[in-house]
Amino acid sequence: MNQIKVFCPGSVANVSCGFDVLGFCLEPVGDIMSVTKTVTPGVTIGTISGQDLPKDPEKNVASVAVKSLLEAHPSEYGFRIDIEKKIKPGSGIGSSAASAAGAVFAVNELIGRPYSRNELIQFAMAGETLASGAAHADNLAPVLLGGFTLVRSNKSLDIIKLPSPPKLVATVIHPKIELKTIHSRAILKNTIPLEKAVQQWGNLGAFISALYTNDYELLSRSMKDKVIEPYRAMLIPRFEEVKASAIQAGALGSGISGSGPSIFALSKSNEIAEQVGNAMKKQFDDLGLEYDVYISNINNEGIKILH
Amino acid sequence: MNQIKVFCPGSVANVSCGFDVLGFCLEPVGDIMSVTKTVTPGVTIGTISGQDLPKDPEKNVASVAVKSLLEAHPSEYGFRIDIEKKIKPGSGIGSSAASAAGAVFAVNELIGRPYSRNELIQFAMAGETLASGAAHADNLAPVLLGGFTLVRSNKSLDIIKLPSPPKLVATVIHPKIELKTIHSRAILKNTIPLEKAVQQWGNLGAFISALYTNDYELLSRSMKDKVIEPYRAMLIPRFEEVKASAIQAGALGSGISGSGPSIFALSKSNEIAEQVGNAMKKQFDDLGLEYDVYISNINNEGIKILH
Repeated sequence: MNQIKVFCPGSVANVSCGFDVLGFCLEPVGDIMSVTKTVTPGVTIGTISGQDLPKDPEKNVASVAVKSLLEAHPSEYGFRIDIEKKIKPGSGIGSSAASAAGAVFAVNELIGRPYSRNELIQFAMAGETLASGAAHADNLAPVLLGGFTLVRSNKSLDIIKLPSPPKLVATVIHPKIELKTIHSRAILKNTIPLEKAVQQWGNLGAFISALYTNDYELLSRSMKDKVIEPYRAMLIPRFEEVKASAIQAGALGSGISGSGPSIFALSKSNEIAEQVGNAMKKQFDDLGLEYDVYISNINNEGIKILH
Repeated sequence: MNQIKVFCPGSVANVSCGFDVLGFCLEPVGDIMSVTKTVTPGVTIGTISGQDLPKDPEKNVASVAVKSLLEAHPSEYGFRIDIEKKIKPGSGIGSSAASAAGAVFAVNELIGRPYSRNELIQFAMAGETLASGAAHADNLAPVLLGGFTLVRSNKSLDIIKLPSPPKLVATVIHPKIELKTIHSRAILKNTIPLEKAVQQWGNLGAFISALYTNDYELLSRSMKDKVIEPYRAMLIPRFEEVKASAIQAGALGSGISGSGPSIFALSKSNEIAEQVGNAMKKQFDDLGLEYDVYISNINNEGIKILH
């Protein structure tokens, strides 16, 4: 195999109660990446369409991630990466994770699949570090493993795939303002009240229990974030109104997707997820702010080979 | 029915990664409580054996809990509570929770069972508040519901029963020093580093996932506490050595039981749990400190009626 084309999906990290540890994979939005073996060793970026991103292999998250993989597993070949970038950087739905995960996944296939999807996360982390200044696997894990994932430890990359309740459908609205993860991270406090931390881990524990038991009501009660959301909400126009309108329209819960500005909601059917999307849109329409909206099943497969 | 006798088991709260939210129920250690209907209304304490505890109904956690129940559900009868107190107050294995939960459970049976076990937690909380100054359900929940339990919210008392992996056996060693919850709570900081909070909720999430999947290795990796244990360990002689010896002897993990001074470990068989107990004993023997040791299956039933 000399060439491979893969679909690199977007993802929602944090999911209200799981800052830096929880995430799930989206279905309808993602990048298309082609990776081609070259005779000359090394990693190059060929074409990038859709977004203005660096072609310098030292500055592009896809090539940086592949370099990390090739350091651990050298190849006599080189690799050229061509990207149709559909996920906007700074949108909060894992743009850099899609690029980094997609590139290492594709190269891993081309070199005979020496690593499992879980093992590839360590290499994709190099791309995430470049993008956000801090290596986090909460978007990479769902993109590579599919479904809901939990990062027990970012340090040892101990990552668990969680079950997805069958009725869950996500709504994601991306207001067209760019928010760099590095900035939305800077706004956070270094310490948090113990009392709020306890509430947060109570909610995360309950959310995970609900995933195993398909308890949608418990899922709904657990989708709370008193630690991060109050700070990041300030960076997103009308966040509180959008969230309230989503819940009013029937969503189980709603919150900031990753570091924002995208806002996500989870609902118990496709129909409700559509209504939730319409309610969210109305808020940004009133404001005259442009947006994209995605209605998405939980993508249990993650990255997939197109051909 | 005019009289009932119940077994009120001990419990382990926090379980390393779940401060104030996680707990499990023990089997071999617990109080025996008899409650008798009386013609004169009100709640009285009859005999208390085993420990020196207040007989004033306003000062005893069992009667205070029952009063809270009777406020919500008045009765024309009164109730006399006789207690064989086997769990030492200040031992860290839920002494006050056993008394409070046992008393409301027994009276609930005598008045025709108007409340479920889960609903009884709200009344037992009155006893816990008296005992520790702060109402927490992390011991009450496992005593009333059995098995492992998660308190999603202490405020709304949203409590979830979790599954128990079949091979798990607990070892609990109680060094004979008394530690009041109110004091071991005072030593804690009001704020914690966000980074450590994230590690803690990653571990708690993984622990709960492991309970559903019987993943003993993941359970082992998740039994960590960088938030509370470093402070409370200072109040327990040789805590680090006891914990290390438990793990050395084959335990999946070990930590402080509740607010201490008892130390618990979880193991994958009865045989290992016994070996772990012997290793822990040795540490306190060297120190000349007296102790009790319990080897316990996870008690999935909780409080039970003796006759």
